[in-house]
Amino acid sequence: MSKYVAGPEIERLIQLLARVPGLGPRSARRAALQLIKKKETLLQPLSQAMQVAIDAVQICSICSNIDTVNPCLICKDERRDSSILIVVEDVSDLWALERARVMRTYYHVLGGRFSPLDGVGPNNLNIKKLLDRLTDSSVKELILAINATVEGQTIAHYITNLLVNFDVKVSRLARGIPIGGELDYFDDGTLAAALLART
Amino acid sequence: MSKYVAGPEIERLIQLLARVPGLGPRSARRAALQLIKKKETLLQPLSQAMQVAIDAVQICSICSNIDTVNPCLICKDERRDSSILIVVEDVSDLWALERARVMRTYYHVLGGRFSPLDGVGPNNLNIKKLLDRLTDSSVKELILAINATVEGQTIAHYITNLLVNFDVKVSRLARGIPIGGELDYFDDGTLAAALLART
Repeated sequence: MSKYVAGPEIERLIQLLARVPGLGPRSARRAALQLIKKKETLLQPLSQAMQVAIDAVQICSICSNIDTVNPCLICKDERRDSSILIVVEDVSDLWALERARVMRTYYHVLGGRFSPLDGVGPNNLNIKKLLDRLTDSSVKELILAINATVEGQTIAHYITNLLVNFDVKVSRLARGIPIGGELDYFDDGTLAAALLART
Repeated sequence: MSKYVAGPEIERLIQLLARVPGLGPRSARRAALQLIKKKETLLQPLSQAMQVAIDAVQICSICSNIDTVNPCLICKDERRDSSILIVVEDVSDLWALERARVMRTYYHVLGGRFSPLDGVGPNNLNIKKLLDRLTDSSVKELILAINATVEGQTIAHYITNLLVNFDVKVSRLARGIPIGGELDYFDDGTLAAALLART
């Protein structure tokens, strides 16, 4: 029996869709079929939006955020509080914090997870750019909004050490139980941190 | 605070990705970011594959399958058994049966779920085309591989009634417990059907 259900053009679409985060081989097949059925209303607009994004996307030369303008919309926004700078590992973290809509400040994207085993050391991250940015700036507080992983904490420690000569207060995100979290789902480390930092 | 995290071109990409089956608003955002990061290796090829698919996709004039050739690869395959025709509601059902690789026969896609409340009655489905196809054909058995839902069974009954004057045996998929299924996950109807059809 033939290996393919449909023609090579459709199989290639399925294969590429399967590489989109959130879709697997099975859901890619379902997605491809639905996209083809909605050719005019979804597939065509999506293909065009992708092409537009490809042409428009830029990396912000100040904070390394991904946007379609450079500097990015956030760095361009003059109404933000320039006394606080939030350091994140990845653009996805920046987007998550922006969606939380708590603080209206500026960001600095390190541009990757610190991961010595994968060859991503401090020199591969935008740390020098961060130090340059802090020199002669109005930043009074640096919030290290870095993942609560071993790697994240290592890079947070590394940055904290580099900043001893800067007149900048360094803070980190609070550790604890997420809102709505049930105690028995969390590991001992999280529970211990939440207990010690009780309010 | 601004409604958008990134520029309008990226937001539009996220909005369209969120309409892809299998992705939601949150996973669409993550997918968009990963696609943008893999601009050369994934986003560009995917956008192109979509455009190619848009131009190439056709509906088979014989069985209503979706393919890039007409007649489709399956209808074109002369090595299949032309004495059996499998009727399915949707192209996704055809693809699922082809992946199962059990029978090497031909198909007929009704092109929609029978759903009177949504205005999809027997006349909206490819039933007349099915009858035309059975006239003066070599088909000896028609397998109704139709969903085990009320609507599916209604349309199966309707087709069976239409075929009384045709010299064609009509069969349906066996009802029972899926392979690997645990008894307490299934409803009473499935268990009753599996008991009555015990082998």
